[in-house]
Amino acid sequence: MNKSILSLCGGVGGAKLAHGLCKNVRPEDLLIVVNTGDDFRHLGLHISPDLDTVMYTLAEVADPERGWGIAGETWDFMEALAGFADLDWFRLGDKDLATHLYRTRMLGQGQGLGQITRALCRSFGIEHRIVPMSDDPLRTRIVTDRGTLPFQDYFVRQGCRPGVQAIEFDGAGQARAHPDFAALLNSSELDAVILCPSNPFLSIDPLLSLEDVRSSLQSVNAPVIAVSPIVGGKALKGPAAKIMEELGMAAGNLSIAGYYRDFLDGLIIDAGDEHEAQAIGELGIKVKAANTVMRSVQDRIDLAETCLEFAASL
Amino acid sequence: MNKSILSLCGGVGGAKLAHGLCKNVRPEDLLIVVNTGDDFRHLGLHISPDLDTVMYTLAEVADPERGWGIAGETWDFMEALAGFADLDWFRLGDKDLATHLYRTRMLGQGQGLGQITRALCRSFGIEHRIVPMSDDPLRTRIVTDRGTLPFQDYFVRQGCRPGVQAIEFDGAGQARAHPDFAALLNSSELDAVILCPSNPFLSIDPLLSLEDVRSSLQSVNAPVIAVSPIVGGKALKGPAAKIMEELGMAAGNLSIAGYYRDFLDGLIIDAGDEHEAQAIGELGIKVKAANTVMRSVQDRIDLAETCLEFAASL
Repeated sequence: MNKSILSLCGGVGGAKLAHGLCKNVRPEDLLIVVNTGDDFRHLGLHISPDLDTVMYTLAEVADPERGWGIAGETWDFMEALAGFADLDWFRLGDKDLATHLYRTRMLGQGQGLGQITRALCRSFGIEHRIVPMSDDPLRTRIVTDRGTLPFQDYFVRQGCRPGVQAIEFDGAGQARAHPDFAALLNSSELDAVILCPSNPFLSIDPLLSLEDVRSSLQSVNAPVIAVSPIVGGKALKGPAAKIMEELGMAAGNLSIAGYYRDFLDGLIIDAGDEHEAQAIGELGIKVKAANTVMRSVQDRIDLAETCLEFAASL
Repeated sequence: MNKSILSLCGGVGGAKLAHGLCKNVRPEDLLIVVNTGDDFRHLGLHISPDLDTVMYTLAEVADPERGWGIAGETWDFMEALAGFADLDWFRLGDKDLATHLYRTRMLGQGQGLGQITRALCRSFGIEHRIVPMSDDPLRTRIVTDRGTLPFQDYFVRQGCRPGVQAIEFDGAGQARAHPDFAALLNSSELDAVILCPSNPFLSIDPLLSLEDVRSSLQSVNAPVIAVSPIVGGKALKGPAAKIMEELGMAAGNLSIAGYYRDFLDGLIIDAGDEHEAQAIGELGIKVKAANTVMRSVQDRIDLAETCLEFAASL
């Protein structure tokens, strides 16, 4: 079985596979690198939505219905705030607030995001290593038919409705990969890189835009595989398919494969999409079909196992 | 009946009388000036404990048991935070947090504390005018036998246990009275100044240390009265009596009268302390005995009425 697994992910779908990987791989053999392009300041708080989703999912406290935040959350803060101001477009639960206030306080005291994430994970009893893609700021901005929008403005406030023309990463020229991320990516010990089923444009591209990451993925000896976030021409969650169409791509696994083709060795697609396998294979990318819709924890474990076996076979 | 009443107050006891005054005086005829010497930053939030207590009391949402915070408060944030860090010595309820985050955000956008207080009061449906004593920072520090402590460190974290040697007001040289406070204090329309039953050292002295406030009180034509916070040689709440003894004063109404004698025209003492009236009278200060222990809202209304009548009689 694989060791030294590098997993790259965004929020919900990515977090589910990361959870499955944790059930299959020992803490010392897995590094989960999380997108922070969606991070933003709101109400004076530094909010890291994807880090939180991954952390809550791995701690098994994530809300299974909403797909974000903490199970059994309460909303007294939000309701009180709504009395003062129209500031409740980004919902912050009472428990969730503790994460944001703690993180913001520690950042204010000069700690790095990685260091703070480690402390939070320890408090949540998470043994596996989660790191932000970078300790430096890199912010995703969406160029739309309604102007260039900060990520959360596009994603939450406007509910992904504006048409996407391009996506920019503010700070991409300066932001460096988190040291643990860079070290494993360039380590001879690396056994596999697994791109979780996250939005390629919004969740994976920010990581790829960090200094040296894309070139390292291109030259790495270990197999690089991805789990497609597209099932039956649609994204399970979020605007991936909509954005593909707006950017002039067909919403399908072939487009995902083509988008990553400069470094991808293998793509896992949903069992129902097997008809796309041949075309993807012609790009020089191996394909494996499996159940990629993770409804249960067992689905996460099974898909993670499939990823590990597939990578080991390449 | 009096018009143009200026009321100076700190937290709990002061807030109760301020509430009673609101039930007796029209909004346009009362200005409530609140101590902000206890304000501090905690978890990145600007917290104004006395302003909040007065605001919640006037809005009739204050918790009657605790004496601070909001009735029916929930503590999910605090419990989650305790999982991460030893930062829960200053308790912040979920609803209360909305006030702090809103205020901090508005301060960050360059608004003044007075302006923000007005907006908060409007949201809480408070018609009477509450202003912070100053828009400028003035911070109370307690010189104790365990060193000089920031106010909340002394008051909450150390539960007022250290022996007090002196009290300092950081910023007193620069901080100016809030414009509405200064204007009414120097207005020929002013009918009475009422010092609420607040701690003289911790709640009233900060106001008196603002530029020109003490000298204006000394020269003002309107009567200046105070309600003593001491009943039967003890403070109803808080460390006023303990501090008096530590500073070498007898814990009694005579000491309160002596402390304010340079500007005070009348002192209301509790009915049970009438034996002190003569000695206070000898300082040239009129005395009125009344029930100063406000257990019910009616007690607040009655004491406020007594204050207004007493001031009008001087």
